[in-house]
Amino acid sequence: MYRESNGRSVAKALSWRLLGTLATSVLVWVFTGRVGIALTVGALEFFAKIALFWLHERIWDRVKLGRRESRPAVVWFTGLSGSGKTTISRWVYDELKRRDVRVEYLDGDSIRDLFPNTGFSKEERDQHVRRVGYLASKLEQNGVFVIASFISPYADSRQFVRGLCKSFIEVHVSTPLQECERRDVKGLYRKARLGEISNFTGISDPYEAPECPELRLDTRFLTVDEAGGKVIERLRSYF
Amino acid sequence: MYRESNGRSVAKALSWRLLGTLATSVLVWVFTGRVGIALTVGALEFFAKIALFWLHERIWDRVKLGRRESRPAVVWFTGLSGSGKTTISRWVYDELKRRDVRVEYLDGDSIRDLFPNTGFSKEERDQHVRRVGYLASKLEQNGVFVIASFISPYADSRQFVRGLCKSFIEVHVSTPLQECERRDVKGLYRKARLGEISNFTGISDPYEAPECPELRLDTRFLTVDEAGGKVIERLRSYF
Repeated sequence: MYRESNGRSVAKALSWRLLGTLATSVLVWVFTGRVGIALTVGALEFFAKIALFWLHERIWDRVKLGRRESRPAVVWFTGLSGSGKTTISRWVYDELKRRDVRVEYLDGDSIRDLFPNTGFSKEERDQHVRRVGYLASKLEQNGVFVIASFISPYADSRQFVRGLCKSFIEVHVSTPLQECERRDVKGLYRKARLGEISNFTGISDPYEAPECPELRLDTRFLTVDEAGGKVIERLRSYF
Repeated sequence: MYRESNGRSVAKALSWRLLGTLATSVLVWVFTGRVGIALTVGALEFFAKIALFWLHERIWDRVKLGRRESRPAVVWFTGLSGSGKTTISRWVYDELKRRDVRVEYLDGDSIRDLFPNTGFSKEERDQHVRRVGYLASKLEQNGVFVIASFISPYADSRQFVRGLCKSFIEVHVSTPLQECERRDVKGLYRKARLGEISNFTGISDPYEAPECPELRLDTRFLTVDEAGGKVIERLRSYF
């Protein structure tokens, strides 16, 4: 998102008026200083100042003063499969888009689709999260908000990503295992219990919950709107 | 980089003059329509219009019309080790920075430093290039120029990256093997010949030269300034 600052606009208003009035005075003086001609001058001014205003705008377009971009952040959703990460993070992404914020959405499924060879061993998960974190940090450095939704079960790799980013906002979607398993939206827990999926976080693989996340959301007690609203509230200082 | 379009500025000039003249007319009419009072009105106008101009700017700040960002591109340098990729790509990066373009620099060495486990087998190189390409495409999607410098020896993976990007500009730094080996800036060719480094592109690993790159630069016949200048020339339509 690009916005001009208040100070920039005040400066433009002052500079424009000085220029405009100076132009009028010179014109009136050239036309022998009589007040009666002021109306003629007004008509001339009408067109002359349109040209001047335009020139003035083009000159200001080269001036950086007061140009700013909103400071971005990386909002990292971590939690078990089925905890509600995707739903909440999508909600937040849509809300930022609606507010005209420059924002990118990254999630585990879509990136794994592109790189199908990425496995689920500790090392592969770790590398995967670090790489995505690097991508997120590069986007952040270039003024883009990032909404990232990854199980990211290991505290170490989340810590690594935090280190790469300027503003890292960790959102722990803390819906407990039994609730996620009860919902079992994608039927994955059942398969994991039957042993059809290995390395399944929460069943056959550990989940290291963040100790001090910026935000913790338990979807047993929050609707999507409430959870998303809390994230937006937390981001208020950024736009 | 953020710039306002010419059309936007013309529209602002027209709207401002209409507003300003309307305000003057109303003021003159309120003060009993006599021309002599025009000078008093001028003084009043001087201050009133500063406030109006400011308000006018604040309103325009909410309007998207004519706001634009420069269209970015991914400039991908490929070539043998020691061919001059880094020197030229750095030159181009610095030049874009100097021109206030939002730009990110990505190269093999710095990314491998961060992910030391990335190997040099065909599959690992391939995955590495694809991942970096994904990063580059995400930056491009968000309005950031990308200068990428990677040996990227396999045509397949470069083609994959081309497919991800909107504007992919492949720059083949085509300095031939014997010249790269003669220079041997980092002493890597000597080590590769001695067998101390395996999977070394050009010696013990293939390099698939691009058939139709957007640009081909042979540093035997070009200085850095000339080579960099050619790239900037190729990018002229982008900013």
